[in-house]
Order: sequence, then structure tokens, then C-alpha cells
Amino acid sequence: MTLVLSNEDVESVLTMKICMEALEEAYREEAEGRAVNQLRYDTRMPLPERAERMAHYEFKTMVGIVPKAGVAALRMSSTVNHRPIVHGMERSERLYLAPGNTTVGLIQLYSLETGEPLAFMPDGVLQGMRVGGTYGLALKYLARENAATLGLLGSGWQARFQLAAAGIARKLKLVKVYSPTREHRERFAREVGAELGLDIRPVESAAEAATDVDILVAATNAKEPIITGEFVRKGMHVSAVQSELSDQALAKADFIAAHSSKRYVIYMGGEGQYGKLSPHRPSMVEHEKLPLLEDVIAGKIKGRNRDDEITMFHSGSGMGLQFAAVGARVLKLAKKRGLGKEIPTEWFTQTLHT
Amino acid sequence: MTLVLSNEDVESVLTMKICMEALEEAYREEAEGRAVNQLRYDTRMPLPERAERMAHYEFKTMVGIVPKAGVAALRMSSTVNHRPIVHGMERSERLYLAPGNTTVGLIQLYSLETGEPLAFMPDGVLQGMRVGGTYGLALKYLARENAATLGLLGSGWQARFQLAAAGIARKLKLVKVYSPTREHRERFAREVGAELGLDIRPVESAAEAATDVDILVAATNAKEPIITGEFVRKGMHVSAVQSELSDQALAKADFIAAHSSKRYVIYMGGEGQYGKLSPHRPSMVEHEKLPLLEDVIAGKIKGRNRDDEITMFHSGSGMGLQFAAVGARVLKLAKKRGLGKEIPTEWFTQTLHT
Repeated sequence: MTLVLSNEDVESVLTMKICMEALEEAYREEAEGRAVNQLRYDTRMPLPERAERMAHYEFKTMVGIVPKAGVAALRMSSTVNHRPIVHGMERSERLYLAPGNTTVGLIQLYSLETGEPLAFMPDGVLQGMRVGGTYGLALKYLARENAATLGLLGSGWQARFQLAAAGIARKLKLVKVYSPTREHRERFAREVGAELGLDIRPVESAAEAATDVDILVAATNAKEPIITGEFVRKGMHVSAVQSELSDQALAKADFIAAHSSKRYVIYMGGEGQYGKLSPHRPSMVEHEKLPLLEDVIAGKIKGRNRDDEITMFHSGSGMGLQFAAVGARVLKLAKKRGLGKEIPTEWFTQTLHT
Repeated sequence: MTLVLSNEDVESVLTMKICMEALEEAYREEAEGRAVNQLRYDTRMPLPERAERMAHYEFKTMVGIVPKAGVAALRMSSTVNHRPIVHGMERSERLYLAPGNTTVGLIQLYSLETGEPLAFMPDGVLQGMRVGGTYGLALKYLARENAATLGLLGSGWQARFQLAAAGIARKLKLVKVYSPTREHRERFAREVGAELGLDIRPVESAAEAATDVDILVAATNAKEPIITGEFVRKGMHVSAVQSELSDQALAKADFIAAHSSKRYVIYMGGEGQYGKLSPHRPSMVEHEKLPLLEDVIAGKIKGRNRDDEITMFHSGSGMGLQFAAVGARVLKLAKKRGLGKEIPTEWFTQTLHT
């Protein structure tokens, strides 16, 4: 039987601690050459007939194989996206157009022994946990040992997971959260503070959140820099995607780790036979030349050398092997609990000898 | 509802004529920049513990979006493969290890309007028809108008589709078939001859099959050249994958068409961070520089100029957009006939706003 899990199923079995353990194992396997990771691959098509700003259909894939986890994972999404301007900044957002105002992103797990599909699960909760867990792992290996205060930019879905993971990596005494809408940041402070048992204070500006903190975390969907050079101070560890960091902020780093996250983007009507690669903001940092988090975790590279150094991690795209490692844990736990719906596996197999 | 079709369902609705029409449309759309095609992406892991020669697990993906067909197609396979030596030649074959001695290769169709999964179908029959249909289309545009005799190397599954498509592209008076096992070629001549209404004669050697024919088709799984320079004669059209053609054979061509079929292969334990690209036999032909079949079909490039020219087509890997175009036709026909099994689409969607 092939198991179909829901986001609720995933949420009910996957703790941030388990997620981070699975990710740590995946990175070690990757560092030792015992895992395979396909680059993320986005295929896009403009939808000029839609009213939303820059509406486009997008199909994404990434694949990872982790022998130790016994599975290959395909993460795919099939979505209609747009780029609204919110608070003067361009954001990348999905439209919920599938039946019942839903969207489609799936993790498909396959057996390395037989090839059969083991499970389908939505990627929402797992993606949030994976991103949070990845930044949490980086923080565990790069932040000062005694880091205890954290500034958080963003109060959405992802911010919660970032904070949960940071709270596992370090004992946090104080968290300051800023997001543009007062109501959002206040609710976040109240609700997530209670949930994670953390002292979270909403503050009036990004600059205030970044002041007097050991760790600065951005969890926004801004496509433009929100972390300026002034935000970054000695001894700090910074978690952010590259587009959230200004060049001045990046320039202050003593050590920046990344993970293997090159990606290909193919547009319809782009340049050349296969379209053109995604246009990136020119940056002083060549992402592909950065030291890898996996090598820091495996002890091949030392990240932080002194307490006053500034360290950063930006994860870029996800890696298929993260979904393999975490997905395999979810599947195991869900089976033990008897969760999910079943589809006969023979609906997906074939006898045909081609 | 998301429809699940079987190979039998696909076979019962998809004729070679419909398949070739869908492919022709897909190529035209591609040539006009109205379709998107992801490069094929193979992710491999050696399985040294298995007894079979060069056993490895392999996960393949390719994606194509054809707006005119209304779908994005993901073709994926999750298989354990090996490389046995058969008749002194290395072959690439799958092991049937999924429950009931099966294997896993699926075409997943997604809606461009909503993102939802529309259908899952095995890739076996569709792949056979697609490859046959693609070579048939090339033959339609490149072979001499009066070509009427065909030499066929191979008598397997693929050979049947190649011949069906060739029989649609040209009126064939005589077919000569050779494959190493006498019983196989004799049965092929008898059965496929009756099925397609063609005069098919089994012959004793590849050289004999290639003698006095207007069209030469190789449909083998040989990893080494089987078409020598001597086989290729003035006025001939040759259908073969690059590995089946010797350099001498390739050198005789006046015109070689290909399709957009670059691929990435990532090995575990290979060179570099992402492994190394697939090792190819060094060849005088740079596949990526070949004129494209889509441009021949769209009339942008003229293939054959004179009756005595030698034309060739080798398709390399498949293209995602072929599976989108043909898969969409299969889905439409299957729905009209009420075929297949249904899975609630909400099993694959999510409400989560990430």
C-alpha cells in the first residue's frame, strides 16, 4: 500500500527535534559522499491573461537519495504564482486555485530496494520545518555558544519554525520580533511565545529588533534586502536568504555558509534553447563558492573561530536529500501510529517489459 | 477526482496516428516558443551489494509544459537497473523488484489553470509510442517521398512502435527485420506483419537488413554501435540513437536532426560536488549543435534537399513536453470512455498558506 498523509498527519508526528536530527544525518551523509542530490529545477510559464501582477504557472522539482534513510524523495510543486507589491516590497506568493482554495506541493517517497512509491505527503508543514531546522542547524554550528538573544524579522508561518529551531540550538532568554503589521507581530509574540515557552517582545522597527541581539533571523518573503549593514554587529550570527541581505550586510561577515542549492530555472520565451537562468541581483557573494554547511557539520571546515566574528548562513533553495531524510522519518512515525490513507501500490506500478 | 490509468487503458485509447499528431503539435509549439521543456535529470546510486552487473538505483525526471494541451507533465521513474552482457554487448535493463514483479515509471499530469493533479499513468506504453512516433515524425519530414523499403534492427517492444509509425509516415512495400535470436525475428515478422498489414521478412544478419532499403531503423538496447559505415547508403534515412551509430556511419550523413535532449546525470560518489556528467563515447557529433527536429517540422530548416542525400535522426532522451502533449490526449480520450480509477484530488492538495 502507498500511504497518503496530510499536513495534519505530518504535524502530529514531526517535532523540530526529530526534523533537525534527520537533517543533521542527511548533511553528514552528503558530506561523506553517501547521498545524492539533484539540483532544484523550476519550469515556468507566464500567464499574461491573469489579472495578478506577474502571474505565472510554475512546476518545481527536486530529488534526493539518502541510502541510510532507504528512500528517494521527489519534491514537486504545481502552482500558479504572482508577485504582488506589499508594503512597498515585491513578494512572491502562490494563488490557491486548486479545488477548495488549495495548492499543490507534494513529497513523493520511493523505495530504493524495489522502486515502489511508499508515500505521498503535502510539502507545507515539512517545508516549514525543514527550512527552520536547516537554519537551526547552521545556528547550532555557527552562533556563539553563549548566544541568548534573538532578533526576528517576520512573523509569519516560517518565522515560527525558525524560532522553534533556534530555541533547540541555543537557550534563548529574549526574542524581539518585528513585522510591518502591528497586529501580526503582537499575535506572534503572544501565541508563539506561549507555544515555545519563550519571552518574545514585539518591537516597532527592524532596526530595533536587530539591536543588542546575538542572533538575527530574517523570515520574510521580501525579494529586496531588509538587513542593512548597520544591523550586523560583532559576534552576531545571521540567518537570512541572500535577497534579504544588503551587500553591506554581506560584506561584514567573517564566515558565510551555504548549502548545495544551485538551481535551474527555465522560462517560456526566454533566451536560448532552454530559456535563460533566473535573473539574480548582482551580488558580491558567489553562492556556489561558499563553504558548505554539510562540511561544517561533518567537521571538515571550522565555521566560527572567535566570539567576535560575524557568521551567516543563507540556505537558498532546498535540497532533495533533506526531504528524503525528514520524509522517511515522518513515514516511519506515521505508519507506527496508523495515520494516513492508502492507495493500492499496484495502481502505480507496471509489468510491462519495455 | 484524479484519474489513475493503466498501460492497458493507455493502449486502448492511444493510436499511433493520434500520438504522432500530438507530438507534431508539441514540436510546433516548442519551435514557436510556446512550450517549456525541462532537461531530463537522472539521479543514480550504485548498489554494490546486489549480484547483478553494475546494479544501480535510478530516479529520473523530466517536465514539460504545453499551454495548448493545458497540462504540465512530469515523467518520473524509480527503478533498479543493471547492465548485463547479452550476445557480447552491454545492455541497460531494469530489474522488476516492485510488488508483483513490476517496475515504476509514471506520467503525472497537472492542470495549468489550477495546479491540481489530473492523472497518473504508467509510462510504458506511452513511452514506446512516443519514441516510435518521434522517429516516425522525423521520417515523415526527412526520408525520401518515395521511400518504400525499410530495414529494421531489433525485434522487441520498441521495434513494433517504430514500424507502426514508419508505416504511417510512408507507404511501406517491404520490411526486413534482423535480431540475434532467430525465433524472435521470425515471430516479429509473423505477428507484427499481420497486425500492421505489412510484408515483413526475417533476415540472417544486420547487414542483410540494411541492404537495398530506403530507410534503416535501429530499435535495440545496444550500448555499442551496430550500424557501421557500410550499412549507410545514398538516399537513405536512418533512425537510431547515437550509441547505435558508428562514427563512420555518422560521417556519411548529409543532415542529422536531433531534439532538445540534453540531460544531466548525477552519480553518488562521482567527481565534484554534484557528481560528474554521464560519460559518453567521444563522438564526432556534438549533439547539442545539431539542427532540431522541431525546426524542421516548423519549416524553419530544410532537412532533405535531394533524393540521394543521407538523412538521420537520433532522439537521445525524451522530452517532457512530448509527455504533456500525448498524455493530455490520452487523458481526454480515457475520460470520454470512462476508463481508469479515481483518487480524490484533495488527497494531493493543501490549504496551508506557507
